[in-house]
Amino acid sequence: MALGKNYDGQDCALASALEVIGERWTLLVIRDAMYGVRRFGDFQAHLDIPKAVLSQRLSALVAAGILERRRYQESPPRDEYVLTSVGRELWLPVLALAQWGERHLSDRGARRQFHHLACGSRLGRGAVCPACRTDVPLDEVEVRPGPGLRGDTRQDQVSLALRTPRRMLAPITDKMG
Amino acid sequence: MALGKNYDGQDCALASALEVIGERWTLLVIRDAMYGVRRFGDFQAHLDIPKAVLSQRLSALVAAGILERRRYQESPPRDEYVLTSVGRELWLPVLALAQWGERHLSDRGARRQFHHLACGSRLGRGAVCPACRTDVPLDEVEVRPGPGLRGDTRQDQVSLALRTPRRMLAPITDKMG
Repeated sequence: MALGKNYDGQDCALASALEVIGERWTLLVIRDAMYGVRRFGDFQAHLDIPKAVLSQRLSALVAAGILERRRYQESPPRDEYVLTSVGRELWLPVLALAQWGERHLSDRGARRQFHHLACGSRLGRGAVCPACRTDVPLDEVEVRPGPGLRGDTRQDQVSLALRTPRRMLAPITDKMG
Repeated sequence: MALGKNYDGQDCALASALEVIGERWTLLVIRDAMYGVRRFGDFQAHLDIPKAVLSQRLSALVAAGILERRRYQESPPRDEYVLTSVGRELWLPVLALAQWGERHLSDRGARRQFHHLACGSRLGRGAVCPACRTDVPLDEVEVRPGPGLRGDTRQDQVSLALRTPRRMLAPITDKMG
């Protein structure tokens, strides 16, 4: 995930951030972790990503302090991946990018909508609740299916879990666990 | 800049946004356009990017409706690249990503700081002015050198222009025209 030497002169905060997360699969892995995906098989099924690529991206995110690897089963040994507090703060750029994409690239409307769990209002820019006027952290957000999800036929566990409203970060774990 | 088939199932707004701007050089080109860079030679000198790569990225951004190509000289023909209104709205994710990078990846503090031109307050999350409580659009933002810029010795025209406070989007153009 490291960038080439070509980025050396670009030491602004944006370039630094892109060095860590500026790879498309990487941001989609982070998005899924925000939805509560924790296990390799769930990331794999939902992202439809080659195993070797996923494995490399997860390790790089652990090394960067964005994900934490946790052993959840000893025999056979199995790990899950959970966002650290640093990783959870990527919520703001991820939301801003999704809001931009939804406004300018989507013709069916939002696929997912993000609401303040406490009051139900849809979040505005900067993840601010327009009703409560508070900055809403990721674990106080509810993701709901939006109009753009119509016609979605995906049957992996993550797609199924996201078809009803659920709290962000609430673990989605493989039934076979 | 198009992604492979592998992203086909990932039609959320974030994945769509990444299909257009999810390439690291691309976001740095957009960042520079926000600073007011318009001309090929200035992007090239400031980003230190291979000419063929820059040329491809600029064309892709024009095709995506993020930059507009404008002829500024007829003989010899010369074009400049200006952010469209869709491109200017990428200000929010770019700022959010930069703020995250600054908080978590920088040990010298911000290299650039973003202030509300009207009142001088430093912008908070979501590009909101904490004093005026307004959403600040890109053309009402002033970029100022921050503490992280100490020791910067770059001599290209863009680096020089950014060493004093200046309004975002105000054209930085090659002295040679």
